[in-house]
Amino acid sequence: MGDFERPGDVLLADCPARTTLDLVADTWSVVVVYALGRGPRRFSDLGTLIGGISKKMLSQTLRKLERNGLIQRRTIPARPPGVEYRLTPLGESLLEPIGMLSRWAETHADDVVEAQDQLVGV
Amino acid sequence: MGDFERPGDVLLADCPARTTLDLVADTWSVVVVYALGRGPRRFSDLGTLIGGISKKMLSQTLRKLERNGLIQRRTIPARPPGVEYRLTPLGESLLEPIGMLSRWAETHADDVVEAQDQLVGV
Repeated sequence: MGDFERPGDVLLADCPARTTLDLVADTWSVVVVYALGRGPRRFSDLGTLIGGISKKMLSQTLRKLERNGLIQRRTIPARPPGVEYRLTPLGESLLEPIGMLSRWAETHADDVVEAQDQLVGV
Repeated sequence: MGDFERPGDVLLADCPARTTLDLVADTWSVVVVYALGRGPRRFSDLGTLIGGISKKMLSQTLRKLERNGLIQRRTIPARPPGVEYRLTPLGESLLEPIGMLSRWAETHADDVVEAQDQLVGV
């Protein structure tokens, strides 16, 4: 089936490409990677930078991204000691597609609201 | 705050850009739009094309995408009458960012699996 020539297709179930898409195609993962694209950040800084995220959701998202090699966690030798998160090279490679998706959302937000209003009016 | 000059920022809670990102940053929305990028499809064709999606999930995702102006539903005058889905121009504008995200997932699936294995090995 040429599995070794082509890493897969997101249309196929249980294919690594689909599983990988699952990891990144959710709002909080997109927003956290987007935020870390500005540089390494402490947990509390991320909580301030990202509007509307709860500590629990931020913590879960960071753990998920770390477990899958997209971000790195580093203890900062300070008083009191802190923890800093940064994108790995793999995480950095996600900045371009995620930036494009975010720009799409920023550009087309009005069109979506308009489409919703038109349907309500029907 | 210049809200009318700039449509928003995905880092801000309750901003139209974030709400719009919420609509499209989920696996099934990405996969359904990706599949419809190949051309209009009937419900049953989509179910066949997209591995692992249940009828219920496909139906929910199509309704969500329709409600937000990304796809259009059309009754086909045939015997028996059928229903066809196609991308709207707004939905088509999403193909490029979504294609990029899917290609990222296809290209980096192996890196993610490797990162997971390394963490298990620690």
